Amino acid sequence: MPRHIVVELDLKATWVCHRCGFRDTLDKYYWRCPRCGSPLDIEYDFEWRPTGDGLKRYQSMLPLEPRISLGEGSTPLHVRRINGLKIAFKLEYLNPTGSFKDRGTSLAITHAVSVSAKTVVEDTSGNTGISVAAYASTANVKAKIYTPRDAPQGKKLLMKLLGAELVETKDRAEAAKKVLEEASKAYYVAHTWNPLYIEGAKTIALEAYEQGFKGKIAAAPVGSGGLILGLYRGFKQLQELEKTDVPTLVAVQGTSVHPVYEKMYGRRMVGHAESTLADGIRVPNPPRLDEIVDALRKTSGCTVLVDNNDIVDALKMLVKMGFIVEPTSAAGLAGVLKAVEEGCIDRGDEVLLPLTGSGLKMINTLYSLVS
Amino acid sequence: MPRHIVVELDLKATWVCHRCGFRDTLDKYYWRCPRCGSPLDIEYDFEWRPTGDGLKRYQSMLPLEPRISLGEGSTPLHVRRINGLKIAFKLEYLNPTGSFKDRGTSLAITHAVSVSAKTVVEDTSGNTGISVAAYASTANVKAKIYTPRDAPQGKKLLMKLLGAELVETKDRAEAAKKVLEEASKAYYVAHTWNPLYIEGAKTIALEAYEQGFKGKIAAAPVGSGGLILGLYRGFKQLQELEKTDVPTLVAVQGTSVHPVYEKMYGRRMVGHAESTLADGIRVPNPPRLDEIVDALRKTSGCTVLVDNNDIVDALKMLVKMGFIVEPTSAAGLAGVLKAVEEGCIDRGDEVLLPLTGSGLKMINTLYSLVS
Repeated sequence: MPRHIVVELDLKATWVCHRCGFRDTLDKYYWRCPRCGSPLDIEYDFEWRPTGDGLKRYQSMLPLEPRISLGEGSTPLHVRRINGLKIAFKLEYLNPTGSFKDRGTSLAITHAVSVSAKTVVEDTSGNTGISVAAYASTANVKAKIYTPRDAPQGKKLLMKLLGAELVETKDRAEAAKKVLEEASKAYYVAHTWNPLYIEGAKTIALEAYEQGFKGKIAAAPVGSGGLILGLYRGFKQLQELEKTDVPTLVAVQGTSVHPVYEKMYGRRMVGHAESTLADGIRVPNPPRLDEIVDALRKTSGCTVLVDNNDIVDALKMLVKMGFIVEPTSAAGLAGVLKAVEEGCIDRGDEVLLPLTGSGLKMINTLYSLVS
Repeated sequence: MPRHIVVELDLKATWVCHRCGFRDTLDKYYWRCPRCGSPLDIEYDFEWRPTGDGLKRYQSMLPLEPRISLGEGSTPLHVRRINGLKIAFKLEYLNPTGSFKDRGTSLAITHAVSVSAKTVVEDTSGNTGISVAAYASTANVKAKIYTPRDAPQGKKLLMKLLGAELVETKDRAEAAKKVLEEASKAYYVAHTWNPLYIEGAKTIALEAYEQGFKGKIAAAPVGSGGLILGLYRGFKQLQELEKTDVPTLVAVQGTSVHPVYEKMYGRRMVGHAESTLADGIRVPNPPRLDEIVDALRKTSGCTVLVDNNDIVDALKMLVKMGFIVEPTSAAGLAGVLKAVEEGCIDRGDEVLLPLTGSGLKMINTLYSLVS
């Protein structure tokens, strides 16, 4: 029998629904507001007291202590010049399971264990599933992952390797539907809803600040928006603490699926080349769409669209620089270059750009794209 | 035309041959002693002045400044208990190209560039080749890699993806022979000879010290010995600086190929199960064999042998803990557990163990072994 880990946390934080005003303490679990169905937020006191390495370094800035850990965080910040533009790449693909998701998963699985969950469930086509499988395994919690049948073979194998039970579904929509049947019996990680993923991604901003990033722009590929909302929250908290200003946010979406662009500019891009390669940001209905657009507007930011050609070009540049990343990460760089063309970024700016996921999970695909 | 990077270094260090007394300054390049053919060492002044992140943090402890960088070093130290034994895992598989080799490669390619090399050559079946390909690419240097035909397909693809020219040979021996034909025309990286790889691996010990490791044992899988000699050098320099003691070293080799064991105990292991899975430590004639045995003896250390069964058992444990590593890394853990059985490690000890390489490069192999 596997030993169950018991995490007793001093959970002083509070679930908050900004829409209907619902509140409850963090020792309960909700994947969304039980009253009105909106995404929840978390409220807590924070202070600047960085100590140690990784995610734990920012314990005083987080709603809970990340006890279930695999060494996430403390990723390198690597500054390079591309066509004169200074880009501070945050190498998030060097996280324990190869993506920035590990930051949020550390918090989510810690929370699951603290509320005595024995099983976690999730719907995902890739990196989040691998991350959840690894953290659940290390915490001796069962993971059940609903994933579309056509998800990359290597990623599916990895989830199984890490001990997760895989339930293959017709498509993403069916995965999202089926997981809900379990959401009342198990801990539904729900990374596109769960504010702990925003809290996790937030630490990227805190690290970049400590690593000396002083630029005026922060860019990110945007699917469900956890990454860009994390950057926003991190810099906003640093601003409240009078450490730094909030940079202008640049959201990168694909030409095929771009709800943020549509909401922001009131139009859809049609008849354009496809963006199928950026599978990590193919989210048609992000639960936090309004929040994302609000963050972009408040920072005078913009949304840019990239297609498969842009992504392959950017991927070639990244691989040439020695960064072994997946196409969704390349979408980020493609978007930054597009934002310069479109005048949203000035060539004299310095841009923070997280490289989100490792290319080692899909060597064959990368090779066929780049060579 | 790619821009060639010029690195001008203040190279005050000296190549030294401990066997014949040959000496020359570091602005020349030799892959071994030009007089007697022995492996060279490097002499330099060092002082303890850690600043910043990654390998650069230890610039004052290194023979040259690691200018060509991809964010190597600063890997997590993760302490877990296994059967009561405290193991401090150093997560080296989270380095930029997925192995600890990146530390040495950063120094070697920086040196290659500082002596104006336009091409680097290397013979390798895996991780070193990927590492050299990535760092050469980022430095705008051509990489030509000689690799046995039966090297893992994923690793070969990765080298090509990173722009290296791959020359496939019948076996490892032919790769080693063929690369020598180029060694006078290009910079031969020669990681099994090059002391810069020992200097790189040394920083693992420096980091572990700063991360609070206070144990009495350091273990490593041993092929050419760069890792264990690096740990030895790191702790020895820390001892000279009156920071810490040198731990007892435990060398892990495979039952099929074990020159260190043979040299140390004067006998070969025969009729035992095979250790083919630990391909990273399958080195029949390590150039620094005497040095390795000397380091083991001076620290009252030992060598243990592991076979495929031991490796698979250890791999299962590591994957269950959420560490996605390759079988050679699992050989290290298998060896530590064997060393406890054999009385070389006491169950009350704390053991430093680098997890050397990422499993993401070989998901299918891992899956077939673990499930």
